[in-house]
Amino acid sequence: MSWTTEALQRRIDVASHREPADLVIRGGQIVNVFTGELVQQDIAIVDGVIAGIGTYEGIETVDAADKWIIPGLMDGHVHIESSMLSPQEFAKVVIQHGVTSVITDPHEIGSVAGVDGIRYMLEQSEDLPVDQFIMLPSCVPATSFESSAACLEAKDLEPFYDHPRVLGLAEVMDFGALSSAAPGMLGKIAAAHSRGKYVDGHAAGIAKEQLGIYAAAGIRTDHECINTDEARQRLELGMYVMIREGTAAKDLEAILPVITPYNSRRCLFVTDDKLIDDLLDEGSVDHNIRLAVRHGLPAVTAIQMATLNTAECFGLRDRGAIAPGYIADLVILDDLEQLTIHEVYKNGQCVVQGGKLLEQPVTNPTASSTLPDSAYIEQSDATFTAESTALDPVNPAVSLIHDALAESHHEILSDSIDPASSQAFPISAAALSRCQTAPITLDHLALPLTHDYCNVIEIIPNSLVTAHAQYKVNRKNGYFTASTDQDLLKLAVVERHQATGNIGLGIVKGFQLQKGAIVSTVAHDSHNLIAAGTSDEELLLAIEHIVSVNGGLAVVSGSEVLASLPLSIAGLLSELPYEEVYHQMKKLNQALLQIGAAQHFNPFLMLSFLALPVIPTLKLTDLGLFDFAANAHIDVEVQRNRKSASL
Amino acid sequence: MSWTTEALQRRIDVASHREPADLVIRGGQIVNVFTGELVQQDIAIVDGVIAGIGTYEGIETVDAADKWIIPGLMDGHVHIESSMLSPQEFAKVVIQHGVTSVITDPHEIGSVAGVDGIRYMLEQSEDLPVDQFIMLPSCVPATSFESSAACLEAKDLEPFYDHPRVLGLAEVMDFGALSSAAPGMLGKIAAAHSRGKYVDGHAAGIAKEQLGIYAAAGIRTDHECINTDEARQRLELGMYVMIREGTAAKDLEAILPVITPYNSRRCLFVTDDKLIDDLLDEGSVDHNIRLAVRHGLPAVTAIQMATLNTAECFGLRDRGAIAPGYIADLVILDDLEQLTIHEVYKNGQCVVQGGKLLEQPVTNPTASSTLPDSAYIEQSDATFTAESTALDPVNPAVSLIHDALAESHHEILSDSIDPASSQAFPISAAALSRCQTAPITLDHLALPLTHDYCNVIEIIPNSLVTAHAQYKVNRKNGYFTASTDQDLLKLAVVERHQATGNIGLGIVKGFQLQKGAIVSTVAHDSHNLIAAGTSDEELLLAIEHIVSVNGGLAVVSGSEVLASLPLSIAGLLSELPYEEVYHQMKKLNQALLQIGAAQHFNPFLMLSFLALPVIPTLKLTDLGLFDFAANAHIDVEVQRNRKSASL
Repeated sequence: MSWTTEALQRRIDVASHREPADLVIRGGQIVNVFTGELVQQDIAIVDGVIAGIGTYEGIETVDAADKWIIPGLMDGHVHIESSMLSPQEFAKVVIQHGVTSVITDPHEIGSVAGVDGIRYMLEQSEDLPVDQFIMLPSCVPATSFESSAACLEAKDLEPFYDHPRVLGLAEVMDFGALSSAAPGMLGKIAAAHSRGKYVDGHAAGIAKEQLGIYAAAGIRTDHECINTDEARQRLELGMYVMIREGTAAKDLEAILPVITPYNSRRCLFVTDDKLIDDLLDEGSVDHNIRLAVRHGLPAVTAIQMATLNTAECFGLRDRGAIAPGYIADLVILDDLEQLTIHEVYKNGQCVVQGGKLLEQPVTNPTASSTLPDSAYIEQSDATFTAESTALDPVNPAVSLIHDALAESHHEILSDSIDPASSQAFPISAAALSRCQTAPITLDHLALPLTHDYCNVIEIIPNSLVTAHAQYKVNRKNGYFTASTDQDLLKLAVVERHQATGNIGLGIVKGFQLQKGAIVSTVAHDSHNLIAAGTSDEELLLAIEHIVSVNGGLAVVSGSEVLASLPLSIAGLLSELPYEEVYHQMKKLNQALLQIGAAQHFNPFLMLSFLALPVIPTLKLTDLGLFDFAANAHIDVEVQRNRKSASL
Repeated sequence: MSWTTEALQRRIDVASHREPADLVIRGGQIVNVFTGELVQQDIAIVDGVIAGIGTYEGIETVDAADKWIIPGLMDGHVHIESSMLSPQEFAKVVIQHGVTSVITDPHEIGSVAGVDGIRYMLEQSEDLPVDQFIMLPSCVPATSFESSAACLEAKDLEPFYDHPRVLGLAEVMDFGALSSAAPGMLGKIAAAHSRGKYVDGHAAGIAKEQLGIYAAAGIRTDHECINTDEARQRLELGMYVMIREGTAAKDLEAILPVITPYNSRRCLFVTDDKLIDDLLDEGSVDHNIRLAVRHGLPAVTAIQMATLNTAECFGLRDRGAIAPGYIADLVILDDLEQLTIHEVYKNGQCVVQGGKLLEQPVTNPTASSTLPDSAYIEQSDATFTAESTALDPVNPAVSLIHDALAESHHEILSDSIDPASSQAFPISAAALSRCQTAPITLDHLALPLTHDYCNVIEIIPNSLVTAHAQYKVNRKNGYFTASTDQDLLKLAVVERHQATGNIGLGIVKGFQLQKGAIVSTVAHDSHNLIAAGTSDEELLLAIEHIVSVNGGLAVVSGSEVLASLPLSIAGLLSELPYEEVYHQMKKLNQALLQIGAAQHFNPFLMLSFLALPVIPTLKLTDLGLFDFAANAHIDVEVQRNRKSASL
């Protein structure tokens, strides 16, 4: 929001009726989140800011009779990468659900591409219809039990704090480091606080006695509580409770009873991780509101939680309410209780009408026609960023030149310039390609066994936790062979960041594939390549294919790639329009059906957590099978003799 | 609050029970302002910060059984100058009332001494037991109808924003300048906002229709509302309502009914202007709490309003609650409803015990024995400041040298250095002496009249507004003579900042003096010297005396100074300990009785507003009699012929 004297003057001229507003929205019932009341008045907007609430004349007028008007919604904590969409395409999806601001943690792309990943997300989210505020990833890498691509120390994060959209340090999830006062972790927290920034918590399962450690470190939010007891404990400590309703984690119903008129001011709504289909089908935090209202929360309180409370939580004093001096981020509703979205205004511009994204005149030539829906994106300051991004997918030759230039430029500048500065050479999507594996042959995928009894990762449907099972497996010529009858498939994790050639091999049960293989470069937290298959040949095809498209998701069968969603931005995000991503996701789901994959859970979602060693019980990293309980890597073969470490 | 990794480590070590706390306060009922509940738990404190709430061991333990513990109170808006105490002595008074933080506007000293006055208040409030945050005066001078000492433009204020205790721009009271979008005013507001600072309002009597102009300019507080309608209008706009209970303005009872559980988060308590005797006798915002509770507000809500809400209003995230990670500013109560103060802790140090200020070992040699109660003041970073100030009243010679040095230094540096920086040469109290009148004789006080009919300022008791009366007055040899029978006294306003020799003369009715004269250098807003007397001789004596002591209040009779309170710091603040100031105030009141002054109002308080031309109806400035309605100066004599401007 502009605070020049000129901007102030125009605002005051409209407020005092000396000049007409740019736009007047007339006759709607405004939800006042300060008083909890509904008021029928005009909203006068100038330069994208609300100048007055009352009776006003405008150059343009919109009739909102029989409608309700609420502030633009705010998602207090979301990982955009979970949608697999670029920041631009993510914005197009959530704006249709009335979300005009998100606070996001680029943890995944930061894990893969380090500071370049964060810079990319900042650059690509300039001038979108959804303001994307960033909390800097606090725990990259999360663990040393896998080959991670990036390492973000306090000194790496520090320059980003000067960026106006960087609000602080994201979810401090390494409780061990925090509670033991590990210097690296404290350095990051201290740096954020000493700059007056915010620090988010991540206190999953942390008991009351230890929760105080978070609070003592000035960490004032948690989005991981799953019941009223946990929520109450956090509220007692003055922590904001972020009530989460995402694709996997659905905590709202369990937490809701904790809310009282007294403490609601400290509760807000978040999605954390939500896949594109859920975002499209049920929405973002608008879904949290609907769900809360269905469970008895007053609509105005729920709306307050998704607007004013989020703004207050992060000190965003220019948004979260409909009042003079606030940004004109507005959602016009057909129905308050159902939260039926009629129109969405961002900075006073109508961006969604009749529930559909508006295609406005292209003012920015770089918002190219290959991305038709990005037309409403305003002219960006970082012109080159937009240009190079728009060109990349269209003209590989230009892209290559740009990338080479960008790389060399970046190398020269990276030590001397502020990576958070918009003056730095912008990072192109192609420059974030991170699917660099060493050459792989069938030999690399062979899993030699000296006997038949093996440790097996057993999927617990819809849980991040796996079971540690042991089975008698098929063995041929001294090597493990997958069995569709037993549902024992081969699992491979291939290091993809530095082409080290590291490959971890293991056995997984639960996918129920009858043929073929599946592959993904989304594999928390280091996002190496992970694949599961019924044969080594199909496994290899899946891996080779996804490397050839610079990362993504794919389903193969025989010698055919049945479906593929390239995620060429760091192997995490697609460069495609969201509709296309959605379409490809549907095709992937059909392909999964074709190869007989289990239908009672999302196989790709499950696959993406099988390499996460910080979660129980048995996982596979590129360094091998990892036993959470033992906190160590173990062999695939069950050890017959405890004294013998190798077979 | 320190956010170094070392400080964090000590805090976490205590939070996780690895190290004992410095201090544990055990067994008290803690008021949790987040949940509104009482909890009986230990408070563990290390380095002045709360590290844990639960069960803790400490090097030192305080038993708080049968007590209640609330966060240190916060006054959201106060002019310290109204107490006539130095920042140090003011702190000593309000800390006894549980106030550990104030947000103050040095408007008066800024009006007299400009940036030097603001610097002085910042320097003198370092390391006190009450954190004094400063909002920069927005309207100096308030008007051009009197000779003001200082002029504070946006460029003068700007350097102060770098000071960690400067929070923003104080009460924007010039609604005319705001609503007409006057560039000077907008420049100040824009500068504050663009630095992420706060802007206070002052919307006295502003109607709903115009109030939006404040909000549109991002002004989010008001301490001037006097009834529920006004309060409700401000809450609707998202403005914080500062509920004021001061010496003159008492708004609490009238506003209180507006408070609901839904909107209480946006209400807080302030005193604005409170004289020393009221501060000592009834208290600061602790009095607001008691009064609110007496009128039915739940005690915990009232406490929340004086702590958490104030902290949130100004983005002070390190205080306002009792929780880990918050500054250990605590008040231990004998009784919750009565708010009977037992002990006060500032930064974990006990500063008030048994309702009395503690005299702790002097750690700072410059906190001299002439100021016995300042012993608890911690060693200041700005050592020289404390030194020079402490020496001034003791050794005039040293003082003079210091001042000369300070003046010359200041001249040299003033253009090149940041006036807000602690590196700048500190300002001594004596350097702020501003009682510089041109030589005055009886001739200067003679008021020639060509006839007997005069315009008279008639006091309306306990109102800032005066009546414009006309009386037939005593005239001798062509000059006005005061009449005790008619209660028509001579009023003089003497310019005291630049020794211009300007003297405004008029006639005042209402003081009821039977003899003698009264004088004050507290005269809003420009604080010229103002005196009222029954004879020119006594008037002259009063003026000469108060000039000789560098400003203050005095009562004279015949050739005797009956009582005098020197206010040598800018003619506004005393250098004396608060007990002495209180004692002198009592003596002044006795002297007022002696000369027969009216007892149904405070004559000095009334006197201080007779020179304020922005308030109706008839006032006197050093430039002459001022008619608010005509917005112009007028003659004392009633004009017989409207066409003739001079008699």
